[in-house]
Amino acid sequence: MKIIIIGGIAGGLTCASNIKRKKKDFEVIVFEKGGDVSYGACGMPYNLMFPNIPAENLYALSLDEIVNKRGIDYRLHHEVLDMNLNSKTVIVKNYEKTFQEKYDKLVIATGAKNNKIPIFNNEQDSFYFKTLEDLKNIKQYLQNNEVKVVCLIGAGYVNLELAEVFKGLGMKVIILEKMDRILPAFCDEVNEKVYHKIKEKDIDLHLNIDIISKSKGQLETNKAIFKADMFVISAGITPNSELFEVEKGIKNAIKVNRYQQTNIEDVYAVGDVTLAYNRIIDDYVYYPLGTTANKQGRVAAHNIVYGNTLEFFGIVQTAVFKFFEYTVATTGLSEFQMNQLGIDFDKTVINSHTRGSYPGNGRLKVILYHNRKSRKILGCQMIGEDVVAKRIDIVATAISMGITIDDFAWIDLSYSPPFSPVWDPVLIAAQKAIKKTK
Amino acid sequence: MKIIIIGGIAGGLTCASNIKRKKKDFEVIVFEKGGDVSYGACGMPYNLMFPNIPAENLYALSLDEIVNKRGIDYRLHHEVLDMNLNSKTVIVKNYEKTFQEKYDKLVIATGAKNNKIPIFNNEQDSFYFKTLEDLKNIKQYLQNNEVKVVCLIGAGYVNLELAEVFKGLGMKVIILEKMDRILPAFCDEVNEKVYHKIKEKDIDLHLNIDIISKSKGQLETNKAIFKADMFVISAGITPNSELFEVEKGIKNAIKVNRYQQTNIEDVYAVGDVTLAYNRIIDDYVYYPLGTTANKQGRVAAHNIVYGNTLEFFGIVQTAVFKFFEYTVATTGLSEFQMNQLGIDFDKTVINSHTRGSYPGNGRLKVILYHNRKSRKILGCQMIGEDVVAKRIDIVATAISMGITIDDFAWIDLSYSPPFSPVWDPVLIAAQKAIKKTK
Repeated sequence: MKIIIIGGIAGGLTCASNIKRKKKDFEVIVFEKGGDVSYGACGMPYNLMFPNIPAENLYALSLDEIVNKRGIDYRLHHEVLDMNLNSKTVIVKNYEKTFQEKYDKLVIATGAKNNKIPIFNNEQDSFYFKTLEDLKNIKQYLQNNEVKVVCLIGAGYVNLELAEVFKGLGMKVIILEKMDRILPAFCDEVNEKVYHKIKEKDIDLHLNIDIISKSKGQLETNKAIFKADMFVISAGITPNSELFEVEKGIKNAIKVNRYQQTNIEDVYAVGDVTLAYNRIIDDYVYYPLGTTANKQGRVAAHNIVYGNTLEFFGIVQTAVFKFFEYTVATTGLSEFQMNQLGIDFDKTVINSHTRGSYPGNGRLKVILYHNRKSRKILGCQMIGEDVVAKRIDIVATAISMGITIDDFAWIDLSYSPPFSPVWDPVLIAAQKAIKKTK
Repeated sequence: MKIIIIGGIAGGLTCASNIKRKKKDFEVIVFEKGGDVSYGACGMPYNLMFPNIPAENLYALSLDEIVNKRGIDYRLHHEVLDMNLNSKTVIVKNYEKTFQEKYDKLVIATGAKNNKIPIFNNEQDSFYFKTLEDLKNIKQYLQNNEVKVVCLIGAGYVNLELAEVFKGLGMKVIILEKMDRILPAFCDEVNEKVYHKIKEKDIDLHLNIDIISKSKGQLETNKAIFKADMFVISAGITPNSELFEVEKGIKNAIKVNRYQQTNIEDVYAVGDVTLAYNRIIDDYVYYPLGTTANKQGRVAAHNIVYGNTLEFFGIVQTAVFKFFEYTVATTGLSEFQMNQLGIDFDKTVINSHTRGSYPGNGRLKVILYHNRKSRKILGCQMIGEDVVAKRIDIVATAISMGITIDDFAWIDLSYSPPFSPVWDPVLIAAQKAIKKTK
């Protein structure tokens, strides 16, 4: 059995490793377009904090381990240019050489790419922040240039993470956002606190910005001219799916079933290039995250080795990021999504302490959504100090099991003053949600 | 409608408050034997850290709030001496006065008392640590005496919490335990690390200790004579159930149904005096904790007001305590329980980091138990630095919903390097548990 995997970062390498772990004698070739082996992309903002720690520290494994310990034929600088589904062949380019390779099973794990804003093309002071290559370029630039002011284009969570890091490096930070708000997946209650923190930290945020033109160090917009020593653009991503003649859906992401199989029998797809099964709506969404890619990689590996016997459990759209003292987290459907789907939901907002009478106590805001009819929890968002991520995970677990507010409000959570109030904030939210229905 | 509640600490006050919240015109009398209103007993060890913060800071509410804001007829220093189920009457003693009071519904919330070791009776340097009165007495003693060495009798979690606090106050700490081990509800893997920490912190632990005699400052045992300036005894607790002619079970705790009703129709019972419904085994256990008391108090209140329409969701035996840098946590059945119940379980142990490449990263050991046949998760224990309590809560939530390892291993938990590795330790444990079955 010969498996070709296109793309070797998150889902691709996980899939390859899992196939080889189950079947040593299967031949697994990974064609990775770039020059870096699998790395932890979510760690990239934090690597910037340490100029002397090389970006390569984010490698999940060394090439030597991948090839010699795991037995994967992992080839860097190999770009798949074309494929033929009938002859089960891919055409691969390695520098000047082009060749074809046959497969029994194919796994598409090509990820996604940044949406480009052409005005920044070929500008030496302008960078995207998607690949390890981008990270290396920014670190190089910071080493060679005195960057006093950085201008971030887009106000999603990556740029908010970057804003904190750049502030920590002593820079002045400007954020320019095209829309009339930041973080579209979050509700107003969360955003209000983020806006407050942006102001408190003296970050210069501008909404409703249209970019008109750029010359070195200077950006002309509909509102003002912004001057900066460096520009970083995060304006959304698009699946790398153009090459593949398989069925596609939202955002041109590849459609898969819960075996991670495309509409072509021997072709699987995982990670940011695909749609992901969402347990709450029992339907597919585009919600690209590294953890999902890894899980899908394992599922695809299982099904390639044993036949289609393992369904992807599915996501509930859980995500978290750090923004200075705040942790901002979400699980389940966003308000925007629920409105789009026409779901009759109720929304409960509570503020609570995070601990009992014990040092380190912080404040936490919990926004809990439930379906008015079925009473099932649909989503939850949180913003606060102290422990937030593992609290959103409690709700994520509950949502994954289709829990109602009536059950969730009574879960036997741990209590001791150093860690929680007697009723954990997530339970308080559910108790309040029930009370409102009485 | 007139409701009498015997005992006003955790479950009692919660029940009273919830009845008055639902029905303003119901008469609710709380007879509390002691001189303190409801307080957070779990915060007592930490109050010792601050000699100048009065013990009364642990009051959940002031008497004024309870009486005037909540409209509860809350009477301190009122001890119920006897009761007559036929005439629905209780006999109450308030200092020198004794009177009787009739009820329509009765709630027993008398809690539990410390098991006494007679040798320490009437010793001025010896204390239990169960009530706020105990806490006040210890604080008073510490203020008036120079305590250089404290001797703790019993090696359960309360005395371990106290050991940390007393160490922090600069004392030498001796712990004497009757059994051949500490923390019987925890597995060997957890205990091993606790033993190590006890040693590291220079705490003097002795197992298999039989106490022979005591004279002021000196304790004779089967092993040695121990000298100390203060003794604190935590040798288990017993339900305060003697007075009540209702059906009782394990440890003489009162039997209730899931409406928190005893075998006598108009008599409810909540908190440490009762057995608690355990969801995992669909049976009742004695597992006294303040959070459970509060929940049961709410359930009883609901059923008293609306008739029996709300079942107690049940516990899964979740508990946590802090021991120096470690957090020690458990949910679900203990090994001892599973062996007693003859359950065919498998045990999976993993060690993991708690975060990605980010400052604050700690180590965590997870012990996961599942039923070999049904593959359902039965229990989980953890010990580690960093965030542990809210991780046990993830598993507690999963167990409450009867999840299998096959589903749990794939839950969509949040990921960002400041909060978690790509696969959270709880998922790694479940993935390993699955692998072992292949």
